[in-house]
Amino acid sequence: MQVHIVHVHPESTSFNGAMTQTARESLTRAGHEVALSDLYAEGFDPVERGGHYRSRVDAKIFSPLAEQRHAHEAGSLPGDVVREIERLERADLVIFQFPLWWHQVPAMLKGWMDRVFVNGGLYTSRMRYDRGYFKGRRAIVSLTTGAPAAAMGPGGRGGDIERLLWPVHYSLHYMGFSVLPPFLAFGVAGHGYSYADDGDFDALMKEHLENWESRLGAIERDEPLSFPGWGDWDGEGRKLEMTV
Amino acid sequence: MQVHIVHVHPESTSFNGAMTQTARESLTRAGHEVALSDLYAEGFDPVERGGHYRSRVDAKIFSPLAEQRHAHEAGSLPGDVVREIERLERADLVIFQFPLWWHQVPAMLKGWMDRVFVNGGLYTSRMRYDRGYFKGRRAIVSLTTGAPAAAMGPGGRGGDIERLLWPVHYSLHYMGFSVLPPFLAFGVAGHGYSYADDGDFDALMKEHLENWESRLGAIERDEPLSFPGWGDWDGEGRKLEMTV
Repeated sequence: MQVHIVHVHPESTSFNGAMTQTARESLTRAGHEVALSDLYAEGFDPVERGGHYRSRVDAKIFSPLAEQRHAHEAGSLPGDVVREIERLERADLVIFQFPLWWHQVPAMLKGWMDRVFVNGGLYTSRMRYDRGYFKGRRAIVSLTTGAPAAAMGPGGRGGDIERLLWPVHYSLHYMGFSVLPPFLAFGVAGHGYSYADDGDFDALMKEHLENWESRLGAIERDEPLSFPGWGDWDGEGRKLEMTV
Repeated sequence: MQVHIVHVHPESTSFNGAMTQTARESLTRAGHEVALSDLYAEGFDPVERGGHYRSRVDAKIFSPLAEQRHAHEAGSLPGDVVREIERLERADLVIFQFPLWWHQVPAMLKGWMDRVFVNGGLYTSRMRYDRGYFKGRRAIVSLTTGAPAAAMGPGGRGGDIERLLWPVHYSLHYMGFSVLPPFLAFGVAGHGYSYADDGDFDALMKEHLENWESRLGAIERDEPLSFPGWGDWDGEGRKLEMTV
């Protein structure tokens, strides 16, 4: 496999950093090719704005959708966006490694989506979902949370993790990816913020890394999550009622 | 009321701009005080990183939680964060106006949350949810989507809007806000991207603005959404099973 990791953390020595290092090393050992976008280290600019487009279809009024489409057609997409697209196009599997901040992905990763998933290029009104650009490729989100696993079930204090991840998963599905079940490292809250005592914390981190490595060892056999597709909607996009 | 609008769009003449203008004018006419954070216009930096902290508790390893707490305690929070907090502290009602991008808030707003909702200052392990910092204040998200309303119900093509908004609503609840039902302007996709023809599109935009103004006119009587709180969880944060 060609594997691409989109790594999102401001601190290279963080536990997220260890997760990405584990993925690189274990996948490489298993004979896969691994590439990396380290968004913080590369200084990726996550803010979609007019200034990214050097040859605008409308120099006065900035419409992200119109400028993305135009830049794609004109071959004038921003260099960092072109680079990210080329990386994705080489990948059979894309891993997103990040800490869950405020119940969603960090701004750095959100803005990577805002800018890299280019309208008119990587999706159109017809090229979406099970007809999406990245059809046949797989994606997985691997994340850390501060809260312990117990608090992240349905109705739990930290918020139901499945519910929290649904929007980002749906975006990946929109782009055509087969979305694998997420890898969840609970109870990782940064230096001095563990819910457990130090010994228990270290043991938990070690366990997460071991579980991640063994998950990756079998990832080619993972079954993707299920999402609605074109066969499930009427012409207006409403859910079709199934006949019994 | 003191109302604060957090406005998030890169183009001042956008429909989101018109929504914010409508809110400012109609609330002011009704005798309320209205203030504004225009995050794009003010050049807010949404990327949480070590460089924001001029006096670090740990100069080598950057932990966002540790540096936020330290900067709060030391009175050395970044100037733009202090300004945003002061604006929020003056508000009885906070309005978030933004386009839904990739099934979530734009990176600019996500990063505002990552940076402004300061650990150790605006929340602690005990000061959260129905004991949160902004308890007694209200918040509402007002957003535009490209997809039409029909496609954004349960199982619909655009994704169930209630499900998509749950994470951002839960973050506001975490901060103690009473979260009002969202205001949803569907079918707003920027110049040249309407799902409807031009005449219908203009009529729909006018209708959205009128609906927004009348919603704001009655907003003091709005009932907040319901979220779980401290009485609903056991000590580990699991949902308590209710006795019948």
